[in-house]
Amino acid sequence: MTMGEPAGIGAEIAAAAWAQGQGGPVFFLIGDADAIPGPVARIAAPEQAAAAFAHGLPVLHHPLPQRPIPGRLDPANAASVIASIEAAVAFALSGRSGAVVTNPIQKSVLTAAGFQHPGHTEFLHVLAPEAAQPVMLLASEALRVVPVTIHEPLAQAIARLTTGMIIDTAAIAAAGLRRDFGIAAPRLAVAGLNPHAGEAGTMGHEDAAIVAPAVAALRAMGIDARGPMPPDTMFTALARPRMDCAICLYHDQALIPIKTLDMDGGVNVTLGLAIIRTSPDHGTALDIAGKGLASPNSLIAALRLAARMASNRNAR
Amino acid sequence: MTMGEPAGIGAEIAAAAWAQGQGGPVFFLIGDADAIPGPVARIAAPEQAAAAFAHGLPVLHHPLPQRPIPGRLDPANAASVIASIEAAVAFALSGRSGAVVTNPIQKSVLTAAGFQHPGHTEFLHVLAPEAAQPVMLLASEALRVVPVTIHEPLAQAIARLTTGMIIDTAAIAAAGLRRDFGIAAPRLAVAGLNPHAGEAGTMGHEDAAIVAPAVAALRAMGIDARGPMPPDTMFTALARPRMDCAICLYHDQALIPIKTLDMDGGVNVTLGLAIIRTSPDHGTALDIAGKGLASPNSLIAALRLAARMASNRNAR
Repeated sequence: MTMGEPAGIGAEIAAAAWAQGQGGPVFFLIGDADAIPGPVARIAAPEQAAAAFAHGLPVLHHPLPQRPIPGRLDPANAASVIASIEAAVAFALSGRSGAVVTNPIQKSVLTAAGFQHPGHTEFLHVLAPEAAQPVMLLASEALRVVPVTIHEPLAQAIARLTTGMIIDTAAIAAAGLRRDFGIAAPRLAVAGLNPHAGEAGTMGHEDAAIVAPAVAALRAMGIDARGPMPPDTMFTALARPRMDCAICLYHDQALIPIKTLDMDGGVNVTLGLAIIRTSPDHGTALDIAGKGLASPNSLIAALRLAARMASNRNAR
Repeated sequence: MTMGEPAGIGAEIAAAAWAQGQGGPVFFLIGDADAIPGPVARIAAPEQAAAAFAHGLPVLHHPLPQRPIPGRLDPANAASVIASIEAAVAFALSGRSGAVVTNPIQKSVLTAAGFQHPGHTEFLHVLAPEAAQPVMLLASEALRVVPVTIHEPLAQAIARLTTGMIIDTAAIAAAGLRRDFGIAAPRLAVAGLNPHAGEAGTMGHEDAAIVAPAVAALRAMGIDARGPMPPDTMFTALARPRMDCAICLYHDQALIPIKTLDMDGGVNVTLGLAIIRTSPDHGTALDIAGKGLASPNSLIAALRLAARMASNRNAR
């Protein structure tokens, strides 16, 4: 587990996850042992984490240059945040850990300190590339969703959408579901773009012109894809058990159903990397940092999912 | 209750709703008494429905020229379908019934027979206008949503969206919630358009340029509107109790959350009419008509909500 933004909730939710974690997966934090609010068991190598876990949160000590103050971003600590990510990826790449679980970072302060990547995920893809691009999957107990376009204006996402983008994203998702989720033949439901998936062209051309050819191409590749599905009925209680993952065309088409069903339980998974990576589905929460208000539930879900994914990958 | 499309599921779900309806609101059907699969109590006027209700589905007999065959559309019956709607609206306008509950119609066969309205709702607005436009509200136990744009391509809905459209729709929704839902000061959550509601302009300009001014104008009108809300977090279990209605900018932003939470329970309400009108949130289901497979649940929910709305309106 990486430390994430030192002024955020990372240290306190890591400590809380450890406090609730006996019997669950063993993990260790790469961070400043003096900044953890709770019992700490310092370790010198990942291999010591299992024995240390009963005594405190195992921490591989990466001292911060400045003592973190909750809610106050400090560029002086940025290099250490980045080094924590690099170290975590290196351990996973060499097999000394099973996965990387990242705490949220605050991109603005890293950028000010010279970080040149669009975001956390892109940085991880530079450190541990596998597929041509990283793919974001959000997983909860009720639903898995993959957005093809993510953080951009909705009009731009529609204008930019291509058949190739849908194919590439869905193929990486299918490979990840097979390798890391233990699903031999993942059933993908590919969303339409327009109301009722365009209703035979009477409500938009993109479903027939862009989405349907992607579904056909995926099926020709041997992937069990269906669609374009009418977006409003594809996430119902009856429809959810019929798919392993929804391939969605824009941010809110994916995020609305998963957060509406399960606000806390969503885990962010990055597929297309050479390592397993999960993260909680929330930000640094600077406004509540240090106040004991932050819930560790999403981080705990991220830890558990990472452990299951590592087990599935090892079993192959 | 109108008959709806005679080749669809209207008659069978009306009979099923009656069979489950003792103790619930009294209703009567305007339709062909010989086409009802179940006990029928013929009535000559709406005022006889209450006494008849214990003995069978009260039916104000409107004979169809052709005996309906499930699943087979027949333009010869179209005029009777339209007359059933006109009669139902006339009873509600004159106060002889409390509300109109419409069974689904099949627009294509009506159009072929000369029906010139874009849809059911627009026809009702011609028969019983009040506000300048009808507004669709979908209601379930968990959530109420109003889409500002509905059945059009998503790219077109975005291009066509204006501040005035949001204001007009939300104001009609607020008036309906006050008068018919018994909510003295309705709390409206107005959705943003882009991911994270544009995140201060970094992901699209519409939230600040189009949505925010609408929220400000609504507040200046004394309406408790908030927004633009990040679309993915506005429907969570924590957020839902904080609003009485979500004002959504496009079809699936409204329909995905309500159907994901409650596939069957949604009721379609038309606000902006001089009468109360509800309808089940499904179509004519020609493919299963006559097979005893159709669920009356949404029609029953529509009947119950219409009765509550009528009671609220009368109590004012």
